[in-house]
Amino acid sequence: MTEIVPIDPNDVEAAARRLAGHVRRTPVMRLQGCEMGLSQALTLKLEYLQHTGSFKARGAFNRLALAAIPEAGVIAASGGNHGAAVAWAAQARGVRAEIFVPDATPAAKVSRIASYGATVVPGGAAYADAYAASQQRQAATGALVVHAYDQAEVLAGQGTVGLELEQDAPELTHVLIAVGGGGLIGGIAAWYAGRAAMIGVEPEACPTLSAALRAGRPVPVAVGGIAADSLGARQVGALMFDVAQRMGVRGVTVTDAAIRGAQRWLWERLRIVVEPGGAAALAALLSGAFVSPPDARIGVVLCGANTEPGEVVS
Amino acid sequence: MTEIVPIDPNDVEAAARRLAGHVRRTPVMRLQGCEMGLSQALTLKLEYLQHTGSFKARGAFNRLALAAIPEAGVIAASGGNHGAAVAWAAQARGVRAEIFVPDATPAAKVSRIASYGATVVPGGAAYADAYAASQQRQAATGALVVHAYDQAEVLAGQGTVGLELEQDAPELTHVLIAVGGGGLIGGIAAWYAGRAAMIGVEPEACPTLSAALRAGRPVPVAVGGIAADSLGARQVGALMFDVAQRMGVRGVTVTDAAIRGAQRWLWERLRIVVEPGGAAALAALLSGAFVSPPDARIGVVLCGANTEPGEVVS
Repeated sequence: MTEIVPIDPNDVEAAARRLAGHVRRTPVMRLQGCEMGLSQALTLKLEYLQHTGSFKARGAFNRLALAAIPEAGVIAASGGNHGAAVAWAAQARGVRAEIFVPDATPAAKVSRIASYGATVVPGGAAYADAYAASQQRQAATGALVVHAYDQAEVLAGQGTVGLELEQDAPELTHVLIAVGGGGLIGGIAAWYAGRAAMIGVEPEACPTLSAALRAGRPVPVAVGGIAADSLGARQVGALMFDVAQRMGVRGVTVTDAAIRGAQRWLWERLRIVVEPGGAAALAALLSGAFVSPPDARIGVVLCGANTEPGEVVS
Repeated sequence: MTEIVPIDPNDVEAAARRLAGHVRRTPVMRLQGCEMGLSQALTLKLEYLQHTGSFKARGAFNRLALAAIPEAGVIAASGGNHGAAVAWAAQARGVRAEIFVPDATPAAKVSRIASYGATVVPGGAAYADAYAASQQRQAATGALVVHAYDQAEVLAGQGTVGLELEQDAPELTHVLIAVGGGGLIGGIAAWYAGRAAMIGVEPEACPTLSAALRAGRPVPVAVGGIAADSLGARQVGALMFDVAQRMGVRGVTVTDAAIRGAQRWLWERLRIVVEPGGAAALAALLSGAFVSPPDARIGVVLCGANTEPGEVVS
């Protein structure tokens, strides 16, 4: 059981100072709501433009920046995005990285991880299997573990997405964020500390947050659907769940069809390519799974784009 | 011969007021130069996120906003992007649009034009043929002509890209902009009025600006290469050439291979999909065709993304 040290805005602010000049400050873009049949304006945070193609670069960099790295380097398990982020941060830091991936990891993500000089190790059928394999290996090597979502430094790093978003769009009342293990929404909710409502959007096929909120604690769920390679954690992290409870984070689920529809919409209307997990938050708005109050000012985080670009029109 | 009424910054500022709330204010993104082997930082203007997938929405909207539209509506010839923009602006204004396209126009662009309710008419082998066909038709119908690049209102509209870029990145000393007919760089150069150096980047396969600068006037060139559907004008416009001479615009050419390389680089490093014409300006930097002074602060306009997304990895 992970010890719960509550993440707070100071942790996020410290991470932002650490990350400055290393991660990209990704832009926001404002849309008129009428473009998507909404009455309100909408702000998109284009976080898929981040190094390594997802927000995960932030948490991984923050974790490595704060740690003494052993000779064996760093080790992580990942459906792909976190692995690429750890590999990238390790390359920046000049240390070795070993990344355990489940079978569902797309080829685009495997090659991206390898492109940063990391060793990619097949770790079994699902993320949890790859995680178990990485733990076993870590016991032998003593490498530094970089968890995909349940470490304080990782959450604080992801929270810098929220810090930037609030600086660039201080008017937001609601922020929609995709949830797998919950590191991104955990960090962002810790930053906002109640100044805006946090809506966690997850696939019906792996509803980790909704299940945890119902159970009153993180509980395992079945993992599936088209976003499983980025949102397919078996349960949310203990650290994010602590934040989620304190901040009243809500959970909303979307279908795979809604996710694919949001990917297509982003390409057709905006010429943006994102992966299924990167489109999930917007899917909640487009599909009506999240119905926004009439006076809401909504932000949506587009959090990853590690896919084959042709996928969005397939 | 088009009458030369010099475009000046006031025209661009007036266009910006007219366009506010109708076109998107596209974001800029700053990269560290080391990401691309440069010593300087680099600012990208993400104009491909514009309505209709290219900057052309600005000029078309400005032209229609200033005109009395006859019963026959509006008419244009276009390799695709301008046609989509005119169709979009006509739909916004509630008037009819007829768009003449050359054979080289990709299917993605034809369907985009039609999606805004315009009539698409095949107009012959090259842009110049489609333009001639549209002129013949216009003589019969009396529709309002929206020229792809050689009308003052069109240039002023495109110039708002420069106005936004300077507001968001006032430090720039050099701006790299793709050139076909030259409407975009003409408008932007008119806005900057010498406050930054304007570098026109064009494919070796249709070097309209370089040829004009050598000849001292717009002259026709052969049209070809992978960016011909967006940069394949036969010669630069008279209005842009007036601006280019007054502002000392320079011309740089890039190979098709450099353009494709820039498309791939944008996908691999930034998860941005643009069409060949949208990647041309960056190609000048990446390929070394433009060598920037050591103290330069460089802006690059990514101006269009109307392509098949899978193209960038093909």
